[in-house]
Amino acid sequence: TDMVGKHCILELYDCDHTKLNDEAFLRTTITTAAKRAGATLLNLITHRFEPQGVTGLALLAESHLSIHTWPENGYAAVDVFTCGDQTMPERACELLRQELGAKSHALKSFQRETPAALATAIRHPKA
Amino acid sequence: TDMVGKHCILELYDCDHTKLNDEAFLRTTITTAAKRAGATLLNLITHRFEPQGVTGLALLAESHLSIHTWPENGYAAVDVFTCGDQTMPERACELLRQELGAKSHALKSFQRETPAALATAIRHPKA
Repeated sequence: TDMVGKHCILELYDCDHTKLNDEAFLRTTITTAAKRAGATLLNLITHRFEPQGVTGLALLAESHLSIHTWPENGYAAVDVFTCGDQTMPERACELLRQELGAKSHALKSFQRETPAALATAIRHPKA
Repeated sequence: TDMVGKHCILELYDCDHTKLNDEAFLRTTITTAAKRAGATLLNLITHRFEPQGVTGLALLAESHLSIHTWPENGYAAVDVFTCGDQTMPERACELLRQELGAKSHALKSFQRETPAALATAIRHPKA
């Protein structure tokens, strides 16, 4: 498979400043983005900085999603790493772009250089 | 500054299988790696998969560090994203490589396309 590990690096510019600083909104939006990507969210942590800015890290069964926001610059740095051919990280990126009202963005996607054997690895979240 | 946002993508191959599956060891090692990079660790979550494999996500004042391990393949996927010119993400990568006993690795570093204004942004972890 050519879909063993896919990593998306997304820059979001000219976003809605209020949303970038809204920790509760970001938690909801990250959760929705993970679901949209076809991923399973196992844990989500966020931190709000002073005087502004939020970081969110989502632990996925398929790897992770991160967002770091700078409301004062209208900017958010996102990365979505997913393993397996059942997940579509670009869909998470698209949802974040829309929900944060980004007027422009830059998306880079690349394959991680994972061993081919990972394609058939079986793993489950711990109950 | 040219050091506003730096992202390191690290593949670790032929690692020590036992260490890759040792959640407590990985928590300690991630903590040490963050410190080595000059970063401030604000939160750390880990998840152990069945039958094997661990994910660790570290929320840093300067952004994040992630590791996903596949012990059965001796492989770990790492990324370290740091903002500001006080942090040295490559040092975290080097420590992880050593501690996990990786016999080979691949490291890519690139600058995030962050707004220049981030260089002078002031932010503090919430007390």
